[in-house]
Amino acid sequence: MKSNRRRDFLKSAGALGMGLFGAGHASSKSILPLEAQYGTSRNQQFNMCGYAAPKLETVRIGIVGLGMRGPGAVDRLSKIEGVEIKALCDLIPERAEKAKKSLEGTGHNPELYSGNAYSWKKMCDRPDLDLIYIATPWEWHTPMAVYAMEAGKHAAVEVPAARTLDECWQLVETSERTKKHCMQLENCCYDFFELMTLKMAREGFFGEVLHVEGAYIHDLLWLNFDKDTGYQNMWRLRENYRNGNLYPTHGLGPICQILNVNRGDQMDYLTSLSSNDFQMKKKAQELAQEDVFWTEFASKSYRGNMNTTVVKTKLGKSIMIQHDVTSPRPYSRLHVVSGTEGYAQKYPQPRVSKGHSWMKEEEMKELEKKYTPEIVLKVGELAKQIGGHGGMDFMMDWRLVDCLRNGLPLDQDVYDAALWSCISPLSEWSVANRSNSIDVPDFTGGSWKENQPVPITLAGGGTTNVRV
Amino acid sequence: MKSNRRRDFLKSAGALGMGLFGAGHASSKSILPLEAQYGTSRNQQFNMCGYAAPKLETVRIGIVGLGMRGPGAVDRLSKIEGVEIKALCDLIPERAEKAKKSLEGTGHNPELYSGNAYSWKKMCDRPDLDLIYIATPWEWHTPMAVYAMEAGKHAAVEVPAARTLDECWQLVETSERTKKHCMQLENCCYDFFELMTLKMAREGFFGEVLHVEGAYIHDLLWLNFDKDTGYQNMWRLRENYRNGNLYPTHGLGPICQILNVNRGDQMDYLTSLSSNDFQMKKKAQELAQEDVFWTEFASKSYRGNMNTTVVKTKLGKSIMIQHDVTSPRPYSRLHVVSGTEGYAQKYPQPRVSKGHSWMKEEEMKELEKKYTPEIVLKVGELAKQIGGHGGMDFMMDWRLVDCLRNGLPLDQDVYDAALWSCISPLSEWSVANRSNSIDVPDFTGGSWKENQPVPITLAGGGTTNVRV
Repeated sequence: MKSNRRRDFLKSAGALGMGLFGAGHASSKSILPLEAQYGTSRNQQFNMCGYAAPKLETVRIGIVGLGMRGPGAVDRLSKIEGVEIKALCDLIPERAEKAKKSLEGTGHNPELYSGNAYSWKKMCDRPDLDLIYIATPWEWHTPMAVYAMEAGKHAAVEVPAARTLDECWQLVETSERTKKHCMQLENCCYDFFELMTLKMAREGFFGEVLHVEGAYIHDLLWLNFDKDTGYQNMWRLRENYRNGNLYPTHGLGPICQILNVNRGDQMDYLTSLSSNDFQMKKKAQELAQEDVFWTEFASKSYRGNMNTTVVKTKLGKSIMIQHDVTSPRPYSRLHVVSGTEGYAQKYPQPRVSKGHSWMKEEEMKELEKKYTPEIVLKVGELAKQIGGHGGMDFMMDWRLVDCLRNGLPLDQDVYDAALWSCISPLSEWSVANRSNSIDVPDFTGGSWKENQPVPITLAGGGTTNVRV
Repeated sequence: MKSNRRRDFLKSAGALGMGLFGAGHASSKSILPLEAQYGTSRNQQFNMCGYAAPKLETVRIGIVGLGMRGPGAVDRLSKIEGVEIKALCDLIPERAEKAKKSLEGTGHNPELYSGNAYSWKKMCDRPDLDLIYIATPWEWHTPMAVYAMEAGKHAAVEVPAARTLDECWQLVETSERTKKHCMQLENCCYDFFELMTLKMAREGFFGEVLHVEGAYIHDLLWLNFDKDTGYQNMWRLRENYRNGNLYPTHGLGPICQILNVNRGDQMDYLTSLSSNDFQMKKKAQELAQEDVFWTEFASKSYRGNMNTTVVKTKLGKSIMIQHDVTSPRPYSRLHVVSGTEGYAQKYPQPRVSKGHSWMKEEEMKELEKKYTPEIVLKVGELAKQIGGHGGMDFMMDWRLVDCLRNGLPLDQDVYDAALWSCISPLSEWSVANRSNSIDVPDFTGGSWKENQPVPITLAGGGTTNVRV
C-alpha cells in the first residue's frame, strides 16, 4: 500500500500544484482528480433539469452521420407526425444521397450537406432548423452538439455524448447558457423491461432499491476488426486504445433513472478495474500476418477486455457496471434491480422475485399488466412494427418529438448526458491508478437535491400520431 | 480527490509511523495496509502447497462444534471407510450427547468433551487423534486450528478460516512450522457444475480465462434474527457489525481454482464497495419494539447490504465477488467463467456458450459426458444419496479422508484458507477508505510461481469405500 498510496498522493499533489516530492513528474492522469473536483463546487447558471422549451408545432430536423445509426433514424423520424426532415449531412456524399433516396414518397425533401469535415457546420447555421440529430463517430459528438446549441438548435446526440470530463462540462455549460436541450440518445431507457421495472420501482414494488447493475456485454470483436463495417478509418477500433469502460451508458441509463440519479440522488465516487487485454492485440497481430493494413493496429495496446466499475451514491446505493465487447458470450446489459422488498434481472431472460424463488410465468404476466407504462400502451405495438432494436429506438425518437411538440421537459437532459458519459474518463483514471477511487463530478451543481424524477413513465403529451 | 487522497496518505503515513501531518491521529484502519505489505516480503519456512503428509491407514477424527454444521459432518464421516470418530466436542453437553446418539449402530463410539469454553483443548491434546474437524462460530476457527496443529493434528476448518489478516498469518506460519495440513472446508469447490467447469478450464474449453465471478447471495435475514437457530448468543448476527464481504469463500474457492490462484497466478490488489445498510438495523429496531432482547442489537450499525469486491491478479485477470445475505432474491453464487474461447455461468441455471448464443440442452449433455471429473464418476451418485447441500459436502469429506489415507496432497492448503479468507479484512479496509485499493498479501511467499494446479480433477487415490 505504501508505494501505492504515496503515488496517488504525489499525483494529487501534482494536480494541486503543491510541488511536493517533485510532483512535477506526475503523469497527465494526475490532472483528472482536480477536474473531477471542479464539479462539486461550481454554481449552476440555469437548471436544465425539468426545463420545457417553447412548443414546436413542427420539429424541423437536420441529421448528421449517415453511416451505421443515421439511416435508421431517418426512417423512424420520417414516420412521426409533425417532423420535417429538412437536412441530411455526411462526410461521404453517397451516404447522404442514399439516405435522401430512402425518403422518396414520404413528403420529406431534405437538402444535402457533405464533401468536407465541416459541412455539418453549414447545416447547423441554417435558421430554419429546430433540432440537430447527431449519429457520427464518438469524437464528433460533443463538438457537434455544442456547435448546434450555440447555433440555437436543440441537440440530440448518440452515445457516448462525451469522451472526456472537459467535453462533459462543455455540454453542460453550453446547454445552460443557450437554454437548448442536449439529449443523449440513450435508447435502452426505452426498452420494454427497463420501462416496466422503472414503473415498478416508482410504485414501490422493490421497496428501497439499494443495488443496481448494468452492462454492455456484446461480442463485437469481428465488427471492430471489419474493414467494411462503415466505421470510417476504423475509428471504433481506435477508441479501444483507451483503457476503461468506454461504453457505459446503455447499462447505466435505465438504472440511473430507477435510482433517481441527478434527481434526488447523486453519484459520489467510483472505482474501476480492468482485466488485461487477451484478445484485441492478438487479433490485430494475427491479421497483420496476412495484411499490412493491420501493421499499425498490431503495434498498439488495447483496453482490458473486461472492465468492472462500481459507484457509490450519496444516498448509499451501489451501482455495478461492466463493459466487455470482445468475449464470446451472449449479449447482456444485466439490468439488475435489487431492493429491500423485491428483485429483478433482465438477462439471460427477464426474471422477478419477492424472495427465495422466481415468479412463475402467470405472475410475470400479471406484473406486465400492472406495470406497463403509458408510453408503451400508446406506441409500444407500433414501435415493434417499425423496429430499431425491437422498438426501443422508435419509442425514443417518438417521445423526443412528442415532448418538443408539447413543450414538455425531455426524459434525458444534459446532466444525464454528462454524468452517464463521464464514467469513461473516470474509469480510465481509476484503472490507470491501481483502481483507487475517484470522486464523480456533480454536473447539476447541487440541484440534484431538488430535481424531480424523470417523467418518462408518467402521463403528459402523447398527442403525436405515427404513420406506419 | 484532494481531501480523499490526502486522507489516505495520512493513514498510510500513520501506519508507517512517519509522523507526518500529525499522523498519530490515523485510525486503526490505517494499520492494515502495512500488515498487507508484510505478505509480499516474507520468506516461506516450508512450502505446504503440494505437501503430502505420511499415509494414514485409519483417520482418527475429533469433531468440535455440533450446532449447525457439525452434526451433518458426523453423519457423513461415519459412512467413510477408514474413519474412526473418536471424539466429539461442544460447549453444550446435550449437543455432544445428541451427536453421539446419532452414531449408534455405526461402530463409532466417540468420547465426549464439553462443559466449558476450552473443553476442545483437552480433545486436541489427546495423542490418538489425526484430524480435528472444526465447525464452531467464526471467531473460534483460527484459535482452534492453530491449537490443533500445534498439538500435532491436521486441521479441517469451516469457512471462513480466519477473520483478520493476523489470523491468516497465524494459520500459514503454524502449518508451515508443524507440517500439518490446514484445510478450509470450502464445500462449494466440490459442487457438480463447479467441478465440471474446472475440468473444462483445465482442458482449454474457455481458452484463456480472463474474468471470473463468484458470490454469496443468500437471503438469510430471518436466520440472522432467529433466536432459536442455534447460533449461540446470536454470534452470526454480531459478525455483521463489520462492514465488508464477510463470507467470500463459497464464491471464491471454485473460481480461484480455475484461475490457478496460489498455483501459477496470484492476487495483486483489490477494491471493495458496500451499499449502506437498509435492512439489518431496521429489522433490529422493529424487533426491539416488541422485545427488549433486541434493544442491544437495535443500537448497533451493520454491514452494508450489498458488497462488491473486484480483484486484479498478477497475470492480469479480474475477479468480481459479491456478498448479500439480506435481500429478498433467489440464491446465487454466480460462478461466472469468461474466457477468450468460451463462457459459463451457473445461475439462475447452468449455461455455457462459445459465442452469441447459449448451448442447447443436448450440447449441455455432451459437455457433461466429456467434462465430468473422475471424483464425480467415483462418488458423485453416492454423494447425492447421502446429501449435504446436494452431495458436495460428502464429496469434500470423502476426498479429504481419501487423500489422508493415500498420503496425497489435499486440494485446499493453508494458503488457500488464508487467501480466500483475507478478502474480509481487506474489503473492510477498502470500504472504510472510500473504496481505495489495497494490495493482497502473497501468503505463499512467492512460491505461487512454481506451485502446481489443484489436483482435485486429476486421477490419484480413490481407494476409499463408502457405506451408505
